[in-house]
Amino acid sequence: MKVKIYVTHKKGILDPQGKTVETALLSLGYKNISGVKIEKYIELEIDGKSKEEAEKQVKKMCDELLSNPIIEQYRFEVEQ
Amino acid sequence: MKVKIYVTHKKGILDPQGKTVETALLSLGYKNISGVKIEKYIELEIDGKSKEEAEKQVKKMCDELLSNPIIEQYRFEVEQ
Repeated sequence: MKVKIYVTHKKGILDPQGKTVETALLSLGYKNISGVKIEKYIELEIDGKSKEEAEKQVKKMCDELLSNPIIEQYRFEVEQ
Repeated sequence: MKVKIYVTHKKGILDPQGKTVETALLSLGYKNISGVKIEKYIELEIDGKSKEEAEKQVKKMCDELLSNPIIEQYRFEVEQ
Protein backbone atom coordinates (compact mmCIF):
# COMPACT_ATOMS: atom_id res chain seq x y z
CA MET A 1 0.00 0.00 0.00
CA LYS A 2 1.21 3.48 -0.83
CA VAL A 3 1.21 5.99 2.02
CA LYS A 4 1.39 9.78 1.62
CA ILE A 5 2.21 11.76 4.74
CA TYR A 6 2.13 15.54 5.07
CA VAL A 7 4.07 16.94 8.03
CA THR A 8 3.30 20.63 8.52
CA HIS A 9 4.09 23.31 11.10
CA LYS A 10 1.51 23.81 13.81
CA LYS A 11 -0.40 27.08 13.70
CA GLY A 12 1.65 29.91 15.18
CA ILE A 13 4.98 28.13 14.76
CA LEU A 14 7.53 30.14 12.79
CA ASP A 15 8.65 28.72 9.45
CA PRO A 16 12.01 30.42 8.74
CA GLN A 17 12.57 28.45 5.53
CA GLY A 18 9.19 29.58 4.20
CA LYS A 19 9.93 33.18 5.23
CA THR A 20 13.26 33.08 3.38
CA VAL A 21 11.67 31.71 0.21
CA GLU A 22 8.90 34.33 0.44
CA THR A 23 11.49 37.12 0.70
CA ALA A 24 13.36 35.65 -2.28
CA LEU A 25 10.18 35.45 -4.39
CA LEU A 26 9.27 39.04 -3.51
CA SER A 27 12.75 40.24 -4.44
CA LEU A 28 12.43 38.38 -7.77
CA GLY A 29 9.42 40.58 -8.49
CA TYR A 30 6.55 38.26 -7.49
CA LYS A 31 4.78 40.89 -5.39
CA ASN A 32 1.40 39.16 -5.25
CA ILE A 33 2.38 36.19 -3.13
CA SER A 34 2.09 35.65 0.62
CA GLY A 35 1.95 32.98 3.28
CA VAL A 36 4.72 30.78 1.88
CA LYS A 37 5.15 27.60 3.91
CA ILE A 38 7.71 24.88 3.26
CA GLU A 39 6.53 21.57 4.62
CA LYS A 40 7.52 17.91 4.44
CA TYR A 41 5.86 15.39 2.16
CA ILE A 42 6.78 11.75 2.79
CA GLU A 43 5.98 8.79 0.56
CA LEU A 44 6.46 5.17 1.51
CA GLU A 45 5.22 1.65 0.87
CA ILE A 46 3.71 -0.63 3.54
CA ASP A 47 3.39 -4.33 2.85
CA GLY A 48 0.89 -6.95 3.83
CA LYS A 49 -1.59 -5.38 6.20
CA SER A 50 -5.20 -4.31 6.11
CA LYS A 51 -5.85 -0.62 5.54
CA GLU A 52 -6.87 -0.18 9.21
CA GLU A 53 -3.67 -1.81 10.47
CA ALA A 54 -1.59 0.24 8.04
CA GLU A 55 -3.23 3.46 9.28
CA LYS A 56 -2.53 2.51 12.87
CA GLN A 57 1.11 1.78 12.02
CA VAL A 58 1.56 5.05 10.10
CA LYS A 59 0.14 6.99 13.05
CA LYS A 60 2.66 5.29 15.34
CA MET A 61 5.56 5.96 12.96
CA CYS A 62 4.57 9.63 12.73
CA ASP A 63 4.38 10.00 16.50
CA GLU A 64 7.62 8.12 17.04
CA LEU A 65 9.89 9.41 14.27
CA LEU A 66 8.42 11.26 11.32
CA SER A 67 7.07 14.34 13.06
CA ASN A 68 8.06 16.51 15.99
CA PRO A 69 4.84 16.73 18.02
CA ILE A 70 5.93 19.95 19.74
CA ILE A 71 5.99 22.04 16.58
CA GLU A 72 4.51 19.86 13.87
CA GLN A 73 1.24 18.19 12.96
CA TYR A 74 0.62 15.55 10.33
CA ARG A 75 -2.04 14.06 8.13
CA PHE A 76 -1.80 11.04 5.88
CA GLU A 77 -3.54 8.99 3.22
CA VAL A 78 -3.23 5.24 2.76
CA GLU A 79 -3.91 4.17 -0.82
CA GLN A 80 -4.72 0.60 -1.69
CA MET B 1 -5.88 31.69 -4.49
CA LYS B 2 -4.22 28.89 -2.58
CA VAL B 3 -1.39 27.07 -4.35
CA LYS B 4 -0.02 23.65 -3.34
CA ILE B 5 3.31 22.67 -4.87
CA TYR B 6 4.97 19.26 -4.60
CA VAL B 7 8.68 19.23 -5.36
CA THR B 8 9.97 15.67 -5.67
CA HIS B 9 13.20 13.98 -6.68
CA LYS B 10 13.45 12.92 -10.30
CA LYS B 11 13.43 9.18 -10.93
CA GLY B 12 16.84 7.65 -10.29
CA ILE B 13 18.06 10.53 -8.13
CA LEU B 14 19.27 9.43 -4.70
CA ASP B 15 17.31 10.65 -1.69
CA PRO B 16 19.73 10.33 1.26
CA GLN B 17 17.24 11.84 3.73
CA GLY B 18 14.64 9.26 2.73
CA LYS B 19 17.20 6.48 2.98
CA THR B 20 18.17 7.60 6.49
CA VAL B 21 14.56 7.70 7.65
CA GLU B 22 13.94 4.27 6.11
CA THR B 23 16.92 2.83 8.00
CA ALA B 24 15.67 4.44 11.21
CA LEU B 25 12.15 3.02 10.73
CA LEU B 26 13.54 -0.45 10.04
CA SER B 27 15.71 -0.29 13.15
CA LEU B 28 12.64 0.75 15.17
CA GLY B 29 11.06 -2.54 14.13
CA TYR B 30 8.89 -1.44 11.20
CA LYS B 31 10.13 -4.19 8.89
CA ASN B 32 7.29 -3.97 6.37
CA ILE B 33 8.11 -0.55 4.91
CA SER B 34 10.10 0.37 1.83
CA GLY B 35 10.65 3.15 -0.68
CA VAL B 36 10.70 6.03 1.81
CA LYS B 37 11.00 9.39 0.08
CA ILE B 38 11.20 12.76 1.77
CA GLU B 39 9.98 15.50 -0.53
CA LYS B 40 9.06 19.18 -0.31
CA TYR B 41 5.51 20.45 -0.04
CA ILE B 42 5.07 24.19 -0.49
CA GLU B 43 1.93 26.20 0.22
CA LEU B 44 1.42 29.83 -0.74
CA GLU B 45 -1.22 32.42 -1.59
CA ILE B 46 -1.40 34.27 -4.90
CA ASP B 47 -3.53 37.41 -5.16
CA GLY B 48 -5.62 38.92 -7.86
CA LYS B 49 -5.11 36.89 -11.01
CA SER B 50 -7.11 34.47 -13.09
CA LYS B 51 -6.43 30.77 -12.51
CA GLU B 52 -4.58 30.55 -15.86
CA GLU B 53 -2.33 33.48 -15.01
CA ALA B 54 -1.69 32.09 -11.53
CA GLU B 55 -0.69 28.71 -13.02
CA LYS B 56 1.69 30.42 -15.43
CA GLN B 57 3.25 32.37 -12.59
CA VAL B 58 3.62 29.31 -10.35
CA LYS B 59 5.35 27.44 -13.17
CA LYS B 60 7.78 30.35 -13.58
CA MET B 61 8.45 30.52 -9.82
CA CYS B 62 9.11 26.76 -9.71
CA ASP B 63 11.55 26.94 -12.62
CA GLU B 64 13.26 30.02 -11.23
CA LEU B 65 13.52 29.34 -7.51
CA LEU B 66 11.39 26.62 -5.94
CA SER B 67 12.85 23.55 -7.63
CA ASN B 68 16.24 22.45 -8.88
CA PRO B 69 15.50 21.27 -12.44
CA ILE B 70 18.61 19.10 -12.54
CA ILE B 71 17.47 16.72 -9.81
CA GLU B 72 13.87 17.69 -9.04
CA GLN B 73 10.50 17.75 -10.72
CA TYR B 74 7.33 19.47 -9.53
CA ARG B 75 3.59 19.43 -9.82
CA PHE B 76 1.10 21.90 -8.40
CA GLU B 77 -2.56 22.64 -7.82
CA VAL B 78 -4.15 26.09 -7.85
CA GLU B 79 -7.31 26.24 -5.74
CA GLN B 80 -9.81 29.02 -6.17
